[in-house]
Amino acid sequence: MSTTELTAVKPAARGAAATTMMKALVYRGPGQHAWEAMPKPALRDPGDAVIRMTTTTICGTDLHILKGDVPSVTPGRILGHEGVGIVEAVGAAVSMFHLGDRVLISCISACGICDQCRKGMYSHCRTGGWILGNTIDGTQAEYVRTPHADTSLYHVPPGADEEALVMLSDILPTAFECGVLNGKVQPGDTVAIVGAGPIGLAALLTAQLYSPSTILMIDVDANRLAVSRQCGATDVIDGSDGKAVERVLALTSGAGVDVAIEAVGAPATFDICQSILAPGGRLANIGVHGKPVALHLEKLWDRNIGITTRLVDTAATPMLMKLVQSGKLHPEKLVTHRFALAEMMTAYDTFGNAGKERALKVVLSTRG
Amino acid sequence: MSTTELTAVKPAARGAAATTMMKALVYRGPGQHAWEAMPKPALRDPGDAVIRMTTTTICGTDLHILKGDVPSVTPGRILGHEGVGIVEAVGAAVSMFHLGDRVLISCISACGICDQCRKGMYSHCRTGGWILGNTIDGTQAEYVRTPHADTSLYHVPPGADEEALVMLSDILPTAFECGVLNGKVQPGDTVAIVGAGPIGLAALLTAQLYSPSTILMIDVDANRLAVSRQCGATDVIDGSDGKAVERVLALTSGAGVDVAIEAVGAPATFDICQSILAPGGRLANIGVHGKPVALHLEKLWDRNIGITTRLVDTAATPMLMKLVQSGKLHPEKLVTHRFALAEMMTAYDTFGNAGKERALKVVLSTRG
Amino acid sequence: MSTTELTAVKPAARGAAATTMMKALVYRGPGQHAWEAMPKPALRDPGDAVIRMTTTTICGTDLHILKGDVPSVTPGRILGHEGVGIVEAVGAAVSMFHLGDRVLISCISACGICDQCRKGMYSHCRTGGWILGNTIDGTQAEYVRTPHADTSLYHVPPGADEEALVMLSDILPTAFECGVLNGKVQPGDTVAIVGAGPIGLAALLTAQLYSPSTILMIDVDANRLAVSRQCGATDVIDGSDGKAVERVLALTSGAGVDVAIEAVGAPATFDICQSILAPGGRLANIGVHGKPVALHLEKLWDRNIGITTRLVDTAATPMLMKLVQSGKLHPEKLVTHRFALAEMMTAYDTFGNAGKERALKVVLSTRG
Amino acid sequence: MSTTELTAVKPAARGAAATTMMKALVYRGPGQHAWEAMPKPALRDPGDAVIRMTTTTICGTDLHILKGDVPSVTPGRILGHEGVGIVEAVGAAVSMFHLGDRVLISCISACGICDQCRKGMYSHCRTGGWILGNTIDGTQAEYVRTPHADTSLYHVPPGADEEALVMLSDILPTAFECGVLNGKVQPGDTVAIVGAGPIGLAALLTAQLYSPSTILMIDVDANRLAVSRQCGATDVIDGSDGKAVERVLALTSGAGVDVAIEAVGAPATFDICQSILAPGGRLANIGVHGKPVALHLEKLWDRNIGITTRLVDTAATPMLMKLVQSGKLHPEKLVTHRFALAEMMTAYDTFGNAGKERALKVVLSTRG
Repeated sequence: MSTTELTAVKPAARGAAATTMMKALVYRGPGQHAWEAMPKPALRDPGDAVIRMTTTTICGTDLHILKGDVPSVTPGRILGHEGVGIVEAVGAAVSMFHLGDRVLISCISACGICDQCRKGMYSHCRTGGWILGNTIDGTQAEYVRTPHADTSLYHVPPGADEEALVMLSDILPTAFECGVLNGKVQPGDTVAIVGAGPIGLAALLTAQLYSPSTILMIDVDANRLAVSRQCGATDVIDGSDGKAVERVLALTSGAGVDVAIEAVGAPATFDICQSILAPGGRLANIGVHGKPVALHLEKLWDRNIGITTRLVDTAATPMLMKLVQSGKLHPEKLVTHRFALAEMMTAYDTFGNAGKERALKVVLSTRG
Repeated sequence: MSTTELTAVKPAARGAAATTMMKALVYRGPGQHAWEAMPKPALRDPGDAVIRMTTTTICGTDLHILKGDVPSVTPGRILGHEGVGIVEAVGAAVSMFHLGDRVLISCISACGICDQCRKGMYSHCRTGGWILGNTIDGTQAEYVRTPHADTSLYHVPPGADEEALVMLSDILPTAFECGVLNGKVQPGDTVAIVGAGPIGLAALLTAQLYSPSTILMIDVDANRLAVSRQCGATDVIDGSDGKAVERVLALTSGAGVDVAIEAVGAPATFDICQSILAPGGRLANIGVHGKPVALHLEKLWDRNIGITTRLVDTAATPMLMKLVQSGKLHPEKLVTHRFALAEMMTAYDTFGNAGKERALKVVLSTRG
Repeated sequence: MSTTELTAVKPAARGAAATTMMKALVYRGPGQHAWEAMPKPALRDPGDAVIRMTTTTICGTDLHILKGDVPSVTPGRILGHEGVGIVEAVGAAVSMFHLGDRVLISCISACGICDQCRKGMYSHCRTGGWILGNTIDGTQAEYVRTPHADTSLYHVPPGADEEALVMLSDILPTAFECGVLNGKVQPGDTVAIVGAGPIGLAALLTAQLYSPSTILMIDVDANRLAVSRQCGATDVIDGSDGKAVERVLALTSGAGVDVAIEAVGAPATFDICQSILAPGGRLANIGVHGKPVALHLEKLWDRNIGITTRLVDTAATPMLMKLVQSGKLHPEKLVTHRFALAEMMTAYDTFGNAGKERALKVVLSTRG
Repeated sequence: MSTTELTAVKPAARGAAATTMMKALVYRGPGQHAWEAMPKPALRDPGDAVIRMTTTTICGTDLHILKGDVPSVTPGRILGHEGVGIVEAVGAAVSMFHLGDRVLISCISACGICDQCRKGMYSHCRTGGWILGNTIDGTQAEYVRTPHADTSLYHVPPGADEEALVMLSDILPTAFECGVLNGKVQPGDTVAIVGAGPIGLAALLTAQLYSPSTILMIDVDANRLAVSRQCGATDVIDGSDGKAVERVLALTSGAGVDVAIEAVGAPATFDICQSILAPGGRLANIGVHGKPVALHLEKLWDRNIGITTRLVDTAATPMLMKLVQSGKLHPEKLVTHRFALAEMMTAYDTFGNAGKERALKVVLSTRG
């Protein structure tokens, strides 16, 4: 990796080009990544903004990319789709943002114009969706270009906690929209969340916005279950012995749950979810799946259930910002490790060993 | 028919036993059924009614029972869960129905009291649900006892067409609730219905209550596709060459459909449904499934789709009756064959050879 | 009033009749009421239960009745439509309750059978609705007959706090259904509640089930505003100078509120509500009104607002019980005064001087 | 391109105002309007388009403006907010439309970016809303400048009927969104529409998309009631004797209606609506009101009703276009008179004497 870094650094060393280079986390193919010098991004379309990053974080999806599991990401791509920063430049068509504005970057870029955006389904925007750190360069860098700025950035209120807000780029709206809203969590409901990683914990935090009477948290990691209790789980279930289903049924007097939220993305965890639904229950899938699951319609066809999938639309982001500002929601609880932006490689190591490091979300900032 | 009638009349002439026997279609184990003499039912609980049947029909589920595929149905059971008749006796607790009232019998018995009924999920009533012709004797008989009469029968308006109404015992509310309502069919939607049997055609009729702009009907039977056109399908697709998915995508300019309704109950037809959904689409399952299906979450996790299952609640029955009465809905279109009640065995033969007989719904009546 | 009591007591003194008499709060015409001997109620219909009251309370509506403002209530009527007690007798058709069961009595009696009940609109049950303490004798008595017992009573869980539960007979479901559900309170919303009496405070408690970011409480009584703060109001507004509207607009940067809940029942308070709605806002009326209000459609026709009215259906009662049981809802916060059942007249005096006595809800119990 | 540019620039330079002038309908103060020469509009903002009008119409609101009833419209304003035309020029930020495109102009201009637009409440767009023919020049002209073109114009499908489509600029979405959607018309409902003018008839046409079983049409004009029958009303009521309420109640066996749609904008017609609602009913106001109405909360507080107001958002326009294209909706039925664009003054006279002329919608086109 050192060779790459040398090569990349050269232009900066050559002088004039200096100010046009920056440091960024670059995917170099399966198993390879580096914090290296890259050209600083510039405006390309009239709707673009360029943001100087002040805070960013790493997503579980970034780890999948590193393994080579996300074919849309090609070598040379700067990763990252979360962050807060300062507007450094805006295109001629941008009307809501100006130089120096502090902004939250949404993981979803939305044109606001196409048929999908008009329905509020920004995730499937015809010229956007999840593109940052995927098909265009992302936010784990000193600077990032964000397309469709007017409908993909949010003003950060004065005095806001950037650590809390950076959780609103992706993880909080994902957990809330795909898990809580799609699961139609209602006051008095019994909810089970399978997977107590960052996304499952974000579902736990946001499910409480609707006051379920019971939230069962299921995982195989004792530390994460302990954190779940601190974050509001009414019961935790260690599923490492394969008996999660029996325990959920026992805890619910055999009735099952109103809402099961899948926050892992594997056949086994999906199977737990479909096995614990009460009649009329909802299974809200958040997890990213790599293979088919067996759906037991021979048992479920007459159970009046619903199953949903969703890529986050980030339509709920402004509402979540209001709740953070009013102190009703504390996503900063998910932050376990803090780094300077330049410590990106170490941050990846820590996040990549989440179990051993007891890591949930790692935050990188220029103030770190 | 005269012989049968003589036999039936005789007992009455013979005295006491006379009034206690009747003819009924009895399941005698896999592959065996008979139209035979059985004791006439009597009131058992204060909420019961006894109904003299004037019209009934045969459901696809009854054929499954005959094959031995429905383990809850034991030999000796009188089949049938659909029908119209005249109230012959009511228990002390029945307040809405009186001797001589003409009533529609719902396929779902609902106590109206338990937690499930209070939610409107009558299908999962703690002491009811689908029990007629399943765990208690049913409606393919001269008389039937109906529990929870006040919340499981409906008054037939004077002058109503019994043939149309008997479609409201099961098939119309099933298609409407499980297919159309769960699929959230909306004006302007593109809808595909997989399976043009009676239930799929009932979905076709009731989907039009919400004015979709396009309804694609998919089947492998040319006659049923022809009927589909007469019933309002905007396009029909013969899927016998295995290319239904390609054709739906071609007809929708690659976009897929807003709603896919599964009206068969098989892995292959479910698979068509999951393969043609547009982002944001809904898959509403009506079919009774006997085995698991492969759900392609690796393709669907980010497609913002919903999948629903449901046993009919018959909550929509009063509304459907209003629409039949006002001439906006014509379920009698589904009736292809008519028999006298005593011709039950012939009716089963016809319905059991639906393809060859071009049979959709067969109706049996005492006026036949 | 002493004369009346003497007369009423006599029969009991005469012996055998003793066990058939009880004490009850009887309306004797405008301005007249007494705690006097009345015949103990007996079962009348097969769906009835007779309940021995252990806890009851007084509603603001009872005070209106005493003034003669509720013409459906005639002299001689036992008042009260709230309470908890023990089942003393049940009719033959009652299946869910048995002698000795501890039950919560709903202020709404619902047959569970009629078209209105089937829609969940129990308030407009064809043979029920608000009848207790209105058109039939009520719960401010040692015993009460409750019609439609199966669908109008709720089992009290073992160990439950009766003081908390008696708030679920009327005030909590009323505030929740008419105010919070009809107002469609959502996470992040700005809510204003006009009127901080018991019903307004119950709306404040239950609005928080949906996590609004701001709840403004408006009243003219300093004590009630102080209680509002303790119960979760984010801001309180003393409207005694007639400037409530200006203050709400100032607190919301001119935007107005998403939801305005009217919890008084007067033209002036309704007018505040219609004047503070943001575009797209909802005005949920809870108050009982005695005269028309001026609706300013010349200002509101293009504001995309909704206005709702509702008599409580108590459909939410089971859910509210779950939340009380799980410790997520604390309606006992509304109880300021406690009395023995026999101190009914004193309790009325206290509740009738609520301002001076700083009374919210007064509770009467046999353990008092 | 240089030649074209030269050519285009020349006329302006030559002073021959010829090509820079056009004809338009101009409001000159109360009671005064004229079809006169006005400067042809030019692009002003990067999101603008300039459209050459091929079809337009006159709205009831335009008549109100002429009377001086709409203070936001100042003398010198070109009126009109409906129309179809050809794109003549587009600003640099417009991405969805190109020169020569045939487009439908929405009466609502929406930026697609502000908080209101993000909620789909385009009517209250921070920089748009109803501005055409109100605060900026409108569509009753040879050319019009349309701001926020990407989110305020719609592509006209090849072969579409412009007369049908021009009804989708305002009247169809207004009737559908404010009346039918807000009134939550459902299959089997009983609906009453008060006012059989163009907007009431548009509500009648679009209400049928949801298959109510009964639609009562109320007006005082015999011709309009006759048209109502042709457009699908199940009953019509001549309310000229002041007995509309009694007749609606008689026709509904005293039950009242599920949905009452106010399509006039006057206290008397609002009063009919509030007097005929069944418990649980919805009153959807479409009419533009000039003064307050008396809302009878003393009768309605416990009736579980909802009242809504709305300025059209035109969010339903793409869906309505689909239905017109598929032949399920025929708004051209509302067109009674056709004129050439240059006959604007005559068209106004005809529309202004709608009763005598039996006029509903008048259409003006360059092909006229």
